[in-house]
Amino acid sequence: MGFHAELSNQFSSSNQELTKEEKAETLEILVESYKALSADTKNLISNLANASSLLWFCYKGMNINVNWTGFYILDSADDKKLVLAPFQGKVACQEIFFGKGVCGTAASSSETQLVPNVHEYANHIACDGETKSEIVVPIKHNGKVVGVIDLDCLDFSGFDEIDKLYLEQLAEAIASSCDWEKYI
Amino acid sequence: MGFHAELSNQFSSSNQELTKEEKAETLEILVESYKALSADTKNLISNLANASSLLWFCYKGMNINVNWTGFYILDSADDKKLVLAPFQGKVACQEIFFGKGVCGTAASSSETQLVPNVHEYANHIACDGETKSEIVVPIKHNGKVVGVIDLDCLDFSGFDEIDKLYLEQLAEAIASSCDWEKYI
Repeated sequence: MGFHAELSNQFSSSNQELTKEEKAETLEILVESYKALSADTKNLISNLANASSLLWFCYKGMNINVNWTGFYILDSADDKKLVLAPFQGKVACQEIFFGKGVCGTAASSSETQLVPNVHEYANHIACDGETKSEIVVPIKHNGKVVGVIDLDCLDFSGFDEIDKLYLEQLAEAIASSCDWEKYI
Repeated sequence: MGFHAELSNQFSSSNQELTKEEKAETLEILVESYKALSADTKNLISNLANASSLLWFCYKGMNINVNWTGFYILDSADDKKLVLAPFQGKVACQEIFFGKGVCGTAASSSETQLVPNVHEYANHIACDGETKSEIVVPIKHNGKVVGVIDLDCLDFSGFDEIDKLYLEQLAEAIASSCDWEKYI
């Protein structure tokens, strides 16, 4: 591998809206890039840190106006609480209880939450008042939710079923590539 | 506290070069903002994740052209190796051995490395070929280097003695506010 930063640079912006096929191809590159990177280390924190960067540059490159791309993971001392993990974007809430907000609901239900308008989502936790839509994908390891992928967007309906499909693939890749036992 | 993101928003860009006094004041707000945030949690990963965001928005707000703001921490299995921790910016190297590059030298010498031109630094590790200058500040806990703060800039001489002074204060605040024993 040359410069690691090249993995972020590959998602160059086109200033055009992508077709569904182009979007799917780009998100496939995201998943493959994560797999290539995580072949070098099982360290959970290192892998989540690089994954948050891949997510940021991938979505910016697709002209999807993300303002936060990152992770919450299970608190080692309380398996009904998520704690803030690596991300790209503005300062965020440090703790989220299962069942609270979009992240807590994804964790407690073990189901992806695709939220086109966070203002209409009952019990939404706002870390940033500018967020308009959100997608949260649970990460499951040995049948248990151990964390979530969380993406926020400054536009309504920022995410769709294509994002859900590929982010669930990313969640599987993250679940199987990291030393979760050391942290949770 | 209102929206957590407001802590990033407070560093609004002025489009002018700051005086030394303005720069010192801004960096003091950075350190105080970190202390306020970390009063809510001792979780190392959460605190480093939010600190990387504060650093990014603080430096961008001062019109200092940072391309990477983040952390490496000691590997729990090898106390002569740093592993990638939360950051903002492009994908980065996952492991750095003590004595290697600017980060590894800061860790092995326990001294801040202020590098106006990385091309002239013997044994520089380039994660991103666009980086021109760098500052790395060791984080010391119980007399031992447990991690480093690492900032990269796209311009030569991006950092100076004022950065060193306040980033060393930030390193002290990070050292004393987190549950290091759980991770290293």
